[in-house]
Amino acid sequence: MGSVFGRLFRVVTFGESHGPAIGVVVDGVPAGIALDESVIRRELERRRFCHLPVLNPRCEDEEFQILSGVKDGFTEGTPIAVVVWNRRAVSDYYMELWMRPRPGHADLAYYLKFGRFYDHRGGGRASGRETVARIVAGAIAKAVLRQTINVDVASHLVELGGVAISREDYTFEDVVKSWEKPLPIVDDEAMRKAIDVLVSAVKEGDSVGGVGEVLTTEVPPGLGEPVFDKLKADLAKAVMSIPSAVGVEFGLGFRLARMRGSETNDQIVLREVGRDSRPIGSAVPWVA
Amino acid sequence: MGSVFGRLFRVVTFGESHGPAIGVVVDGVPAGIALDESVIRRELERRRFCHLPVLNPRCEDEEFQILSGVKDGFTEGTPIAVVVWNRRAVSDYYMELWMRPRPGHADLAYYLKFGRFYDHRGGGRASGRETVARIVAGAIAKAVLRQTINVDVASHLVELGGVAISREDYTFEDVVKSWEKPLPIVDDEAMRKAIDVLVSAVKEGDSVGGVGEVLTTEVPPGLGEPVFDKLKADLAKAVMSIPSAVGVEFGLGFRLARMRGSETNDQIVLREVGRDSRPIGSAVPWVA
Amino acid sequence: MGSVFGRLFRVVTFGESHGPAIGVVVDGVPAGIALDESVIRRELERRRFCHLPVLNPRCEDEEFQILSGVKDGFTEGTPIAVVVWNRRAVSDYYMELWMRPRPGHADLAYYLKFGRFYDHRGGGRASGRETVARIVAGAIAKAVLRQTINVDVASHLVELGGVAISREDYTFEDVVKSWEKPLPIVDDEAMRKAIDVLVSAVKEGDSVGGVGEVLTTEVPPGLGEPVFDKLKADLAKAVMSIPSAVGVEFGLGFRLARMRGSETNDQIVLREVGRDSRPIGSAVPWVA
Amino acid sequence: MGSVFGRLFRVVTFGESHGPAIGVVVDGVPAGIALDESVIRRELERRRFCHLPVLNPRCEDEEFQILSGVKDGFTEGTPIAVVVWNRRAVSDYYMELWMRPRPGHADLAYYLKFGRFYDHRGGGRASGRETVARIVAGAIAKAVLRQTINVDVASHLVELGGVAISREDYTFEDVVKSWEKPLPIVDDEAMRKAIDVLVSAVKEGDSVGGVGEVLTTEVPPGLGEPVFDKLKADLAKAVMSIPSAVGVEFGLGFRLARMRGSETNDQIVLREVGRDSRPIGSAVPWVA
Repeated sequence: MGSVFGRLFRVVTFGESHGPAIGVVVDGVPAGIALDESVIRRELERRRFCHLPVLNPRCEDEEFQILSGVKDGFTEGTPIAVVVWNRRAVSDYYMELWMRPRPGHADLAYYLKFGRFYDHRGGGRASGRETVARIVAGAIAKAVLRQTINVDVASHLVELGGVAISREDYTFEDVVKSWEKPLPIVDDEAMRKAIDVLVSAVKEGDSVGGVGEVLTTEVPPGLGEPVFDKLKADLAKAVMSIPSAVGVEFGLGFRLARMRGSETNDQIVLREVGRDSRPIGSAVPWVA
Repeated sequence: MGSVFGRLFRVVTFGESHGPAIGVVVDGVPAGIALDESVIRRELERRRFCHLPVLNPRCEDEEFQILSGVKDGFTEGTPIAVVVWNRRAVSDYYMELWMRPRPGHADLAYYLKFGRFYDHRGGGRASGRETVARIVAGAIAKAVLRQTINVDVASHLVELGGVAISREDYTFEDVVKSWEKPLPIVDDEAMRKAIDVLVSAVKEGDSVGGVGEVLTTEVPPGLGEPVFDKLKADLAKAVMSIPSAVGVEFGLGFRLARMRGSETNDQIVLREVGRDSRPIGSAVPWVA
Repeated sequence: MGSVFGRLFRVVTFGESHGPAIGVVVDGVPAGIALDESVIRRELERRRFCHLPVLNPRCEDEEFQILSGVKDGFTEGTPIAVVVWNRRAVSDYYMELWMRPRPGHADLAYYLKFGRFYDHRGGGRASGRETVARIVAGAIAKAVLRQTINVDVASHLVELGGVAISREDYTFEDVVKSWEKPLPIVDDEAMRKAIDVLVSAVKEGDSVGGVGEVLTTEVPPGLGEPVFDKLKADLAKAVMSIPSAVGVEFGLGFRLARMRGSETNDQIVLREVGRDSRPIGSAVPWVA
Repeated sequence: MGSVFGRLFRVVTFGESHGPAIGVVVDGVPAGIALDESVIRRELERRRFCHLPVLNPRCEDEEFQILSGVKDGFTEGTPIAVVVWNRRAVSDYYMELWMRPRPGHADLAYYLKFGRFYDHRGGGRASGRETVARIVAGAIAKAVLRQTINVDVASHLVELGGVAISREDYTFEDVVKSWEKPLPIVDDEAMRKAIDVLVSAVKEGDSVGGVGEVLTTEVPPGLGEPVFDKLKADLAKAVMSIPSAVGVEFGLGFRLARMRGSETNDQIVLREVGRDSRPIGSAVPWVA
C-alpha cells in the first residue's frame, strides 16, 4: 500500500531502483488534453542536471514509453500509463549496503517492515529514483492545470547549502527563466556561491540541505474541499511524501508566528483579474 | 477514474485494446509470497481457448513482463506491475466501426462520455481484452489467498447457450480438473452439446449466454467488514464490473426467494475443520 | 471499517440496534437542494408497515433529528448528519441470545470477529434496524437525483413467499402508486395472496423470501465510470451489502443466459427523449 | 466532500458552528479498547481555557453524547459516533458579517464555492468550533495508540506572540505536566510573558501567532506506508487541515536546510528499548 495518491486525479507509482522499470499510472485525466512525449521528456530532462556532472556522474537520456491513455497527441479520458526503463545499474556497488544500512536512508526501516524479501539495491522503492514517476505525473498535471483552469506552476531554489537568495522582487517569469541557468536560482551571485558550496560538499563525500519554493499563477477560488481536504493539506501531504522533505510552509509560513492578525490579514478588495497580470499565487517552499 | 479496485489489495488497470499494452499494478501484496512468471502465464493461457479456434482465430502466446514488486521468485511487499503487450492488431477492420457503434457494446456510451478523443479501435478500454489485466491480478490474488489463509478458488461453467449441467454431485477437485477439457464443464455430455451450440452460433455470426460458478475451499470466518464492505458486496461489485455480466447470486441465490427461513438457515454446529476435507465454500455464479 | 460507502456522494452510517441511536452522515450533497424533515419522514414511515401489525408489533413513529448540512429547507453543501433515536428496546428478550447465536443471523460471525465486546443485543450493528440509516441516505439521494439530473427512483415487490405478480404491463406510475396499498405489489390478486402467505408464515414463527425490483426514469448516458466503477457494479455492491440479499440482476438478468446476442441486443436508434415519456430505465431486482 | 480523513482509522466530522451540533464518527477502532465519557471530557475541557476568560468569555461545559460503538466502557469494533451539542449561540452578532466577509476567515471562499445556501453564522463549517470534532477523534486515537502500540502523545506551546521558550532540556513528562499551568508552556517565565502579550493583543482587538510542538513516546518502526502514505505525509496533511495552520516541520525541520548530511544523520546503533526510558520521538510543530 501507499503507492496511490489523490482521488479525482489519481496517481499510482511502481518500480524499484534496480528493477526493470519505474512507472506511473494516472487515472482521472479528462479527455482532450494536448499531451505528447515531448511534454514528459522536457520535465525528465530538467531532473537530471547533466551539466553539473558532480550531481549525476552517469548522465544518459531517460528512455520512456506512454503505454495507454494518449492517442494522436491528446488524452483519451482513460488511465495514462508511462514506463521509464531503468538502464543497467551497477548493482554490485550497492550489494555491500545490504549488510550496512545507510544512516539517513530508509534501508533499515524497509528491512524491519518487509523483511528479507525487500529489494534493497540502490535503495529499492525508497530510492531517489522513485521521483522519476512523480516527475511524469507532474508533467501530466501541469498540462491539465494549464488547459483546464489556466494555472501555471513553477519552482526554484531560494536557499542551498546555507546560501540564500538576497532578492525578493522576482516575478513568476524570472522563476520560469531560472531553469535556463546551471541551477534554478534567480539571484546570479547566490547561484555561483551555491554551486561552489555544493561541489565542495560532494567532493568531501557530504551533502547539503536547501529550500525550494513553488509558485503558481492565479488560482481560482474554491479549489480543494472544506475541513480535511483543503488544498494546502493535500499539497502538504504531497510535499512531505518526498523522502528527504522535513518541512513545508505556505505564504508567510513560520514568519506568521511572530506577527499579529492585524498585520497579516489581507483586506478583501474587488478587482479585475486576468491572465496577463500573472500575480504570484500561494508559495509552497520545502526543505530537501 | 474507475480503474482502481479494492482498498488493502488494490488493483489498478490501464490500456486500450489497440494501444501498445494492457497492464495492471497491484498494491498491497505482502512480502514473501512465492510468485513468478509461470503463475501468471498459466492463467493467461487458460483465457485464450486456442484449442477451439472458433473462439479465438489468431491464437498467439501472450507476451508479458513483470516490471516491479517481484525478485528471485518472491514478492517484495511493493507494488507489482505487469505489462501485457498488444500484438499488432488489425485495426483497419475496426476503423469502420467508428461510424457504426455496435449494439451491445460500449462504443456509443464512451463516445457520449469522452467525445472524439476516445480510442474506439477494438472497443478501446471497454474491449474484452481489458480482462487480461484482471486475469493477471487474479493470478496474484490466488497466490496470496493460498499462501496466507489457505484458500483455493476455482470456477467452471454450469450453463452455456441454454445447455445446463445435469449433475450436482461434483467436488472442488472435479471443478479444478474440468479445465483439462475443451471447455471447463464437469458434465461431459453437457460439454459436448455446449460446444455444438457454441460453434453453430459463432458460424451464424451470433453469440450465446451462459452461467459460471466460482467455488472456494473453506473460507475463515470474519473476512470482509460489516455493513457496506461485506465480502459478498465486494465480490458482487467485482463480478458486475465485468462488461457482459448482468447478474450475480450467492449460495442458493434467487432460489431462496421461494423458500422459507425454516428451510434455508443452516444450523450452527461445532466441528473440526481442516484442509483435507476441502468443503465447497460460497459459490459466486455469474452470467456472462 | 466498512461503514463508509461511495466516493462523491459518501454515506457513513453508525449505531447499534439497542444503543442510543442509529445515524448517518452524507458528505458530497451539493448546496441548494430542497430538503427538509418531511422528505425523510415519508421514507421512514414507508419502512414501518404499521398497517400490517404482524410485521411490526410495536409500531411507533421514528424520532429523528437533522444535525447539520440543512438550513431553511435547503442543503448547504456541507455534510448532512441525521440521528434516528432508538426507543427503549426490550433488551432482556435478546439477552438470552447471547448464549444462542441465531442461525441465519450474523451473531456468530460478529462474535468470532470482534469477540466479547460486541453489543449483540437485537443483532447489534447487523440488525435490520441498521437499514434505517440507509433509508435516510436514500431519501437524500432521491432528492439529489430528482433535482440535479431529473431522475426518479421507485421500487416494488414482484414476488413474495412464492407468489409472483402475473402482469408485465405496469408503468413507472403504477409502481409509485403501489405504495398506497398494504404491500407495494402492482397486481391486486397477487398482493392478497402474498399477504396471506406472509401472515401464515409469521404465525408459524417462520419467514419468507421475495424479489424486489427497482425502476428509474430515464438515466442520462455516461453515469458511472469505466472498468471497475460501472454504475451496475456500484449498484450491485450497494444491494448486496443489505444483510439478507443473496442475488441481484440487471435488465433481463439471468434470463439472458439462455438467449442469443441477436435476440438481446438493442438496436441503436435516434429519438427525442423527454421527461413526459418517463420510460422505465434499468431495473435492479434483488432477493430479500 | 472533504469531511473524511484516514483509511484504517477513519474520521468523519459534521456540523456547523450555529447548527444544532458538531459531531464525529470514527470507523476502524478495534474492539476492546477501554474508553468512556471521561476520556473525551478531559480533552474537551483542555480545549476551553476557561481560566483565561479573555480567550473564551462564555465558558460553559461542553454537553456531549456517545451514540454508538462503546458499551460498558469498552469499544465494540463498530463506528464510534459522538455528538457535541451547540449551546444557544448569539447569532445576531454574526448576522452582520453576512454582508461583510472577514479578512483571514473562510467566509468569502465558502460564499464563492457554495453560494447563498451556506450557513455563514459564526463561520459555519469553517468555524474554529469545528475543531471540537477533531478533539473527540484525537481522544479516541490517543486511547487506541496507548492500548495497542504503547505510544503516548503530548503537545505544548514553544512560542506565542513572539515569546519563545528558552529551555531545550524538557522531557516528555514536563510537557505532559505543562497542562496544569494556565498555558501549556514548560518555561514559566516565557509563559508569564506570553500571557501578557496575549491579553494585550485581545484587549486591542487583535490576535497573535504561535508555534506548537507535538511529542510522542517511542514509535515502533514501520508505521505508515512507503511512497505517498508515509507517516510524516499523513501527519502533515492532518496538521495543515487545521484552518489557521500555515506550516509544519518534523525533527530539526527547516534548520536542516542549513546543515550538511554529515551533521544531521543519526548513526544506526543497537540498543535495548523500553517504556521506562520514554525517549522523545518525532516532533510535529505547527503554526496556529
